[in-house]
Amino acid sequence: MTRVDLNSDLGESFGRYSLGLDDQVIPLVTSVNIACGMHAGDPCVMRRTVAAAAAAGTSIGAHPGYPDLQGFGRRDMALSPDEAYSFVLYQISALAGFCKAECTALAHVKPHGQLYNRAAKDAALAEAIAAAVHDFDPTLVLVGLAGGKLIEAGRAANLATAQEFFADRNYMANGTLVPRKQENAVIADEDFAVARVVRAVQEGTIEAVDGSTIEVAADTICIHGDNAHALEFAKKIRTALAQADVELKPCRTQ
Amino acid sequence: MTRVDLNSDLGESFGRYSLGLDDQVIPLVTSVNIACGMHAGDPCVMRRTVAAAAAAGTSIGAHPGYPDLQGFGRRDMALSPDEAYSFVLYQISALAGFCKAECTALAHVKPHGQLYNRAAKDAALAEAIAAAVHDFDPTLVLVGLAGGKLIEAGRAANLATAQEFFADRNYMANGTLVPRKQENAVIADEDFAVARVVRAVQEGTIEAVDGSTIEVAADTICIHGDNAHALEFAKKIRTALAQADVELKPCRTQ
Amino acid sequence: MTRVDLNSDLGESFGRYSLGLDDQVIPLVTSVNIACGMHAGDPCVMRRTVAAAAAAGTSIGAHPGYPDLQGFGRRDMALSPDEAYSFVLYQISALAGFCKAECTALAHVKPHGQLYNRAAKDAALAEAIAAAVHDFDPTLVLVGLAGGKLIEAGRAANLATAQEFFADRNYMANGTLVPRKQENAVIADEDFAVARVVRAVQEGTIEAVDGSTIEVAADTICIHGDNAHALEFAKKIRTALAQADVELKPCRTQ
Amino acid sequence: MTRVDLNSDLGESFGRYSLGLDDQVIPLVTSVNIACGMHAGDPCVMRRTVAAAAAAGTSIGAHPGYPDLQGFGRRDMALSPDEAYSFVLYQISALAGFCKAECTALAHVKPHGQLYNRAAKDAALAEAIAAAVHDFDPTLVLVGLAGGKLIEAGRAANLATAQEFFADRNYMANGTLVPRKQENAVIADEDFAVARVVRAVQEGTIEAVDGSTIEVAADTICIHGDNAHALEFAKKIRTALAQADVELKPCRTQ
Repeated sequence: MTRVDLNSDLGESFGRYSLGLDDQVIPLVTSVNIACGMHAGDPCVMRRTVAAAAAAGTSIGAHPGYPDLQGFGRRDMALSPDEAYSFVLYQISALAGFCKAECTALAHVKPHGQLYNRAAKDAALAEAIAAAVHDFDPTLVLVGLAGGKLIEAGRAANLATAQEFFADRNYMANGTLVPRKQENAVIADEDFAVARVVRAVQEGTIEAVDGSTIEVAADTICIHGDNAHALEFAKKIRTALAQADVELKPCRTQ
Repeated sequence: MTRVDLNSDLGESFGRYSLGLDDQVIPLVTSVNIACGMHAGDPCVMRRTVAAAAAAGTSIGAHPGYPDLQGFGRRDMALSPDEAYSFVLYQISALAGFCKAECTALAHVKPHGQLYNRAAKDAALAEAIAAAVHDFDPTLVLVGLAGGKLIEAGRAANLATAQEFFADRNYMANGTLVPRKQENAVIADEDFAVARVVRAVQEGTIEAVDGSTIEVAADTICIHGDNAHALEFAKKIRTALAQADVELKPCRTQ
Repeated sequence: MTRVDLNSDLGESFGRYSLGLDDQVIPLVTSVNIACGMHAGDPCVMRRTVAAAAAAGTSIGAHPGYPDLQGFGRRDMALSPDEAYSFVLYQISALAGFCKAECTALAHVKPHGQLYNRAAKDAALAEAIAAAVHDFDPTLVLVGLAGGKLIEAGRAANLATAQEFFADRNYMANGTLVPRKQENAVIADEDFAVARVVRAVQEGTIEAVDGSTIEVAADTICIHGDNAHALEFAKKIRTALAQADVELKPCRTQ
Repeated sequence: MTRVDLNSDLGESFGRYSLGLDDQVIPLVTSVNIACGMHAGDPCVMRRTVAAAAAAGTSIGAHPGYPDLQGFGRRDMALSPDEAYSFVLYQISALAGFCKAECTALAHVKPHGQLYNRAAKDAALAEAIAAAVHDFDPTLVLVGLAGGKLIEAGRAANLATAQEFFADRNYMANGTLVPRKQENAVIADEDFAVARVVRAVQEGTIEAVDGSTIEVAADTICIHGDNAHALEFAKKIRTALAQADVELKPCRTQ
């Protein structure tokens, strides 16, 4: 039976600042990626997010980012591979501690924002991240952009990996994402997007932006929970996958 | 055979900023308390400090503090017990991750600065810290001021505890430290201080500042490594303890 | 003609995090207190908040707080008076720079959160804040809790001061606020609260929680803009003051 | 009479962390660039550094950097020009406030570290910085790498500018610095370096690393005060300039 993981970035509140509809997203996904206090999140937020995910039986992952709260980890920051190793290891470990206190286990790691983007292209950075994950726990699943350097680095480090597919983004014929600056970067037609997700999961192919058919890996699909509209889109994807007899399962067990 | 632990606060550098003679202190002590990135330390400093301590075979502890780098964790900060729990759990976990990556284990936790001082007097804060330590790993040793609330809380949480004795501070007849504001807070006569340490460890008694004899617990003695003078004092203590046939051993194994 | 200032705390967003209905509050008040990047706010938020207030012709004040973003400046933090002086001067200056760049002038300073609360009771802290304000610009108005130490310190430093009255809080017979822990701390009956504001401004008296009549100073009234309900309450106060022929004017010109 | 400014980066301590021999550098230079709390420095350090420079009659400048204390502002960080404008304006303003409180005036602005390096090459960033300086005070002098984009942007914004020359770095035939990665980036022979400074100031030419003669601008020369050796080198430069009848004067008055 075909299966796929649905993941979402959570725990991005900070102190007095609230972000995301975490409580409504958790029941919709099989895995959550929880911010670790550097680009977002704080120890109190981490504790209650881990507790909520654990109570729901959702698989928990660390979502480490650049140490840039004001920029939300979305700005490029020239950390050396050694620095990246230490900052990622720090964040994974911190989140794993909250899992331990909740008697659950950390299952995966998915870098955040610009750290994710850069790790998809920069082999040295990708290797540093993979090494940090491996040195902390070699049974963790490393999640990265499908076909990117982080997946390569994870495999080279003997980590299980999960390739992420974007439900709402158009792809170039070469398998990369249409850059956000271009008009057709984001798919406007939700029904097309939902059908494309099912095909990606079942057949491993999609229609690229130029109309050609390309292969894609889709071990896990990112769901956004920023607003009510995003939640509706997530529900449509869930329903369509269920109707197509695709099993929803966290990466750890795949 | 009588034994005691010698501990020192380390890993307090941050980015471009260097602090402490860590490399020279490590060979002198049996345990190090490593800062965890909140009052001092950063992920890169934590990594290399854990590596250095592991290479030397020194027992490693976490040294969590208030989230106040500018104040070095020495200013009082009104964290609620719940907040303190989360901030301490975060820091312990982060440091434990670097231990894991170095294939060594975290052995103890000693709060830093004002968190240490306040936890000695404030039962609710002490219980929150003890709970965080216990929830992360019930085999960790909790280090606190001898006779203080943190030791009580640790025992109540079924944690092993280590009572800390200050080699360079005078004690009141009631067993508390002479406040730093008073002239005779710090012992000026080093030979007297060294002899007092040996007596505290061997007999469990010292002469209080008023000349009376009081009981003290001294499972571990704090050594400072800020400057050359402090290192000399530490060496004198080591020598005196050796001559008195006191075994130097980390708390974990006591 | 009787007059009063209506003030509101603004510019408390940070990076990706949004807080407060700033655009809707600005037209309702005569003065805004803008966060300065320590307990809330960042340089980008400060720039656009100053620009919005300047465009609306609203009087602009600095709203310095403790350096504790995670605690939103609401936790007590034991800064020495010297430290408080430097942190307040830093924040006032930073905000004044954005005013300068917008060709407007900084008019007042109102401390935030726990810095405000503590400055109302702690003379040494109050004097440090007043000194920072005076050293930066002796024509600034210092806003503090009516009858508190900050007002005293401002007067002693030859600063113009504005005493703040809380529209939604009950007062004790001795003129202090009913502590938040008590059930009747906040006034539930909005009409009563609005009528009380008008009386406080016009007659300088209110009914205390025990039914006695007490004198209060009310140079400025704090308006909250966190949610739609708070905005409605603010509008009621505006309307009631207008009907009572009270002129709304910023403190600077009083 | 030929004249030149000697400048040094100061006030880079932070909380418990000390950096730089500020007290010994101040008498050797005509201008100081004081860190503003983002890449280094804190409000308490800024206050005492401004006071020390003011007492010595040294000209004071702001030294704004990227908001990255852990990286000391030396890592590239992808701030947009708008963000850079706000972060620079914030830092300049904050430092100017301490000058105001000390009854002295801010004279110049020199970006720090990677903000300096990038502003020398990136026109959009350079324009944002120049705009922030101009919007705060159009009489400030903008200091940048000789021949770089920041100098161009400053001129275009009608700011006075000062071109900085590096006493200890080799130059390429095209006038740029030999990159730090190359072996001969730093000049080893101090006497050669000192003689070269005098020639650069007096004749506006130096010998490039390939032996050719190139033109250089040298309105101000950067002096390092990190250690005793750096101070000795600075003194040699002072002495050589004095013997060559070069007047030492801050940029503001040039």
